[in-house]
Amino acid sequence: MKVIKFGGSSLASAAQLEKVLNIVNSDDDRRFVVVSAPGKRDAKDTKVTDALVKYYKAYIAEKDVTENQNWIIQRYRDIIDELKLGQNILEKITKAIIDLANLPIDNNRFLYDTFLAAGEDNNAKLIAEFFKKNNLNARYINPKEAGIIVTSEPGNARLLPSSYDKLEELRDSDEILIIPGFFGVTADDQICTFSRGGSDITGSIVAAGVKADLYENFTDVDGIFAAHPGIVHKPDSISELTYREMRELAYAGFSVLHDEALIPAYRGKIPLVIKNTNNPSHPGTKIILEHTSHSAPVVGIAGDNDFVSINISKYLMNREVGFGRKVLQILEELNIRWEHIPTGIDDMSIVLRGRELTPIKEQEIISQLTRKLEVDEVEIERDLSIIMIVGENMKSHIGVTSKAAEAFSKKHINLEMISQGSSEVSVMFVIKTEQEKDAIRALYQTFFKAKD
Amino acid sequence: MKVIKFGGSSLASAAQLEKVLNIVNSDDDRRFVVVSAPGKRDAKDTKVTDALVKYYKAYIAEKDVTENQNWIIQRYRDIIDELKLGQNILEKITKAIIDLANLPIDNNRFLYDTFLAAGEDNNAKLIAEFFKKNNLNARYINPKEAGIIVTSEPGNARLLPSSYDKLEELRDSDEILIIPGFFGVTADDQICTFSRGGSDITGSIVAAGVKADLYENFTDVDGIFAAHPGIVHKPDSISELTYREMRELAYAGFSVLHDEALIPAYRGKIPLVIKNTNNPSHPGTKIILEHTSHSAPVVGIAGDNDFVSINISKYLMNREVGFGRKVLQILEELNIRWEHIPTGIDDMSIVLRGRELTPIKEQEIISQLTRKLEVDEVEIERDLSIIMIVGENMKSHIGVTSKAAEAFSKKHINLEMISQGSSEVSVMFVIKTEQEKDAIRALYQTFFKAKD
Repeated sequence: MKVIKFGGSSLASAAQLEKVLNIVNSDDDRRFVVVSAPGKRDAKDTKVTDALVKYYKAYIAEKDVTENQNWIIQRYRDIIDELKLGQNILEKITKAIIDLANLPIDNNRFLYDTFLAAGEDNNAKLIAEFFKKNNLNARYINPKEAGIIVTSEPGNARLLPSSYDKLEELRDSDEILIIPGFFGVTADDQICTFSRGGSDITGSIVAAGVKADLYENFTDVDGIFAAHPGIVHKPDSISELTYREMRELAYAGFSVLHDEALIPAYRGKIPLVIKNTNNPSHPGTKIILEHTSHSAPVVGIAGDNDFVSINISKYLMNREVGFGRKVLQILEELNIRWEHIPTGIDDMSIVLRGRELTPIKEQEIISQLTRKLEVDEVEIERDLSIIMIVGENMKSHIGVTSKAAEAFSKKHINLEMISQGSSEVSVMFVIKTEQEKDAIRALYQTFFKAKD
Repeated sequence: MKVIKFGGSSLASAAQLEKVLNIVNSDDDRRFVVVSAPGKRDAKDTKVTDALVKYYKAYIAEKDVTENQNWIIQRYRDIIDELKLGQNILEKITKAIIDLANLPIDNNRFLYDTFLAAGEDNNAKLIAEFFKKNNLNARYINPKEAGIIVTSEPGNARLLPSSYDKLEELRDSDEILIIPGFFGVTADDQICTFSRGGSDITGSIVAAGVKADLYENFTDVDGIFAAHPGIVHKPDSISELTYREMRELAYAGFSVLHDEALIPAYRGKIPLVIKNTNNPSHPGTKIILEHTSHSAPVVGIAGDNDFVSINISKYLMNREVGFGRKVLQILEELNIRWEHIPTGIDDMSIVLRGRELTPIKEQEIISQLTRKLEVDEVEIERDLSIIMIVGENMKSHIGVTSKAAEAFSKKHINLEMISQGSSEVSVMFVIKTEQEKDAIRALYQTFFKAKD
């Protein structure tokens, strides 16, 4: 049994929905369909969700909202008319959109979430109608009935663990259930949205809950590329990735799926595949727990910029019990999240994302390190990039780091830092941002042999 | 003006003392002479300090100590007779050795230190006598008069910072001052010894105190080798090292000078040279603050074993503010000193010396990491070695890491971890101990081209 999720661009028009129908129709195991709100039909188009944000803002500003409502209704109407779904569903959706403007504004923590969720919710109803008209035994199911019960944190809902028991009962349904993504309901029946990853997280939760054999995530790309196609010309796409590899790639700039959205599927040990609605015969990229075949040592090369390094040195630092902990304590008290701590003997660096280090925090850190920890030197290094080569099979291949370092050396790229942890899922290089693209190309050339 | 320190083997016999005299005589700048106790004359010999330990043990056990006293007195007598220094100095030393057995045993925290210090103290008197007899304007000066005033921590004395002012006054002396190493006196006139590095630390303190131009540390080797001569056949000796490089080498197994002994000289910005009493024309190894010449990128290769790695992984660890700090807190509460923390995205390793991780502490760590921090996995990896390539000029040479990694790869040595911090004074490799010697040889071959 499979849980299948479609992103906004896969659901933007009648033509796209026909593809979706064919995909669902072509495999009886596709029993749970999680849907986003209609996305853009072309580059100039507006996403329904963005239109709902405008509608919300006009409403709370007590402006006339008729135009906002009409635009959104028209958006659904276009699809309904083209698919010839009839008046009934259009009326339902029209009422739902207009009714948003009857919700209380004062003391309503969930108002924004309720507006936003309408995009997914109404689309799920529309798609259920479309499937039924095409003789599928399909039914819209709202998150409450499905059992997606969440904490009362608007915009940042987290699933209550007890939800999984309720979700599991859906296994026995003989219908194709169409579930709106992106939100759940609280114990008090309030609509509350997830923080990030939109509908991906709903798909992940449902897949874990019904103990699916596979979570299929349909988007508008053929899968994940081994390197950024904006940097490397026509990079290979990755056929198989482990969750750990995916995490490492996502960390350093890969953004096909938000990694947080993957947790339920990962914890539920559900394999995931990223596929293309517009090219469903392409096998896509499979994300699994352990590699099945003997794959290449490196699966992908990622790079991300705007890192900063705080370089600290103190003679005999190494002998001071608690020194490192005290440094981290200072950062924690300033609410600064760090990424890596490469250490020498009498020096240590704290690598963090540039946005974490505001000018005031920078001054405070320097002052505290000097005053409290009596460091000899502290220096802030900006404009750094992290480049990562990722692959769980690196550990069984001696010489991967050597090859990578050689590739850098040949291109005269200076390694500011290197870190290769014991897990050997990845090797991380810190370099100057001005050399980032060269570095990624050099590594791609080394590990994948770029075409042309 | 130079402070010159001689180790025990340089002072073990009349023949050695003649060499010492020639060395001091050959340079008018050698104005402060710090001396150890007489060392071994050959492999089977006993150091005077070790004989004093036995004497102390017999004394506090209330055994007959005559034989202990006689052995030590005879040891000095041999030298005095051969140098024809006469009865006066012998009587002084005899009395000093015998008088130790009149000191109070009860409530005497400084008794052990006082016994031990007698080795250096009497040797300084003897050497002053010898120098005077050879027409040097030399004088024994005890640490109290010199101003080496220390904290009341037996076996672990630390210099009181105010001592430096007193020491500085010695600059104006027109005598050659002979200072016993290894101990100072407390504010209450008790003899109290330094923890480690023996007389090296006294030399370092005096050099800093009198603001010497050079601190000459005479020992029985031509200097520091670029790699361990037990592993690499006839390694090069290093002509010039910075203090930072010395620290890094000392960390990973080099042990010519105890690095803690260097702090006063380092802080006082005094250059140091390690020379050979038995081969004084050899330039030795100079330890300085900054490289003067454009030296090679790598100055030395060190290796040390008995490291352990605690490998921790937790999905989305990277998102948890305070995770790393909490791990270090657990270690600190268990009084465990760590060395390095290579981090991946969802994993982190703690590298520490094997002796830090007793079986009980190991269980406690695993239990706390699992219970308090809910890690997914924790694994303990033993029998690891740290290999370091050290050199401040590495930062201006692209490709050093690449060369090193390639050398390992060619010898099929798997890198468990790599860490290259921002300081680039060293690159650290963690490998399995069984491959340590091969690794050092491969690196030496790469960076120094071994002879033979």
